[in-house]
Amino acid sequence: MDYLGNHLLVELYECNSSKLNDQNQLERVLEDAVRISGATPLKSSFHQFAPQGVSGFIIIAESHFSIHTWPEFGYAALDIFTCGDSIDNKKALDFIESELDVKTVTVTEIKRGNAHFPLKINKKVSAQVGVF
Amino acid sequence: MDYLGNHLLVELYECNSSKLNDQNQLERVLEDAVRISGATPLKSSFHQFAPQGVSGFIIIAESHFSIHTWPEFGYAALDIFTCGDSIDNKKALDFIESELDVKTVTVTEIKRGNAHFPLKINKKVSAQVGVF
Repeated sequence: MDYLGNHLLVELYECNSSKLNDQNQLERVLEDAVRISGATPLKSSFHQFAPQGVSGFIIIAESHFSIHTWPEFGYAALDIFTCGDSIDNKKALDFIESELDVKTVTVTEIKRGNAHFPLKINKKVSAQVGVF
Repeated sequence: MDYLGNHLLVELYECNSSKLNDQNQLERVLEDAVRISGATPLKSSFHQFAPQGVSGFIIIAESHFSIHTWPEFGYAALDIFTCGDSIDNKKALDFIESELDVKTVTVTEIKRGNAHFPLKINKKVSAQVGVF
């Protein structure tokens, strides 16, 4: 394996805004998604913002799931960061899309942590990637 | 503002492995980094793995900081996800690099959540980006 982790950065657009503003429902959806993916949940925390919006994360044995919602835009930023090759992140994503009535999705997949050391790179390399 | 969030995906290579395996120290470093960035911490959770490795997460009012460490590789995956334009994520990153004796860093900056709706995109768009 060339990389230590696999990170899906998911933009969920045109979601059900009521669901995006319901902390309890989002906790259930993310917990179920973790289970469906085959990952092992360890610790989780969610926060309800006023007047609207929820942030939540679940630390899993294989890294994390997180979500930040903007109900006023019908938008949520979802991250599914896993290591190993036994986690079905796509199945988890399909489930979340279905549960939040998502109409438009973009996924950016980033490989995290080059496993081959030493690295032939400069001290600091930056790249900008726009997600549309 | 064209985007709702700004996400730095940071690969920290050739770190001090002892520090990467010290949950208490990592909690302090991330909490201090949040403070230095000007962000508002809300909830945090850290987990020590056996035989090695730590995962940690801080929900901030402006999204999150997270870290996953692989001491055996001297590597940590750091995420600094912020919204608004008042958070100094680069200052936080410089501090973390210094505290963990990091020798090699790569940064990928992803804009999260296009603020202009409706979007002229297909149902599902995927992209792969390797971080070296």
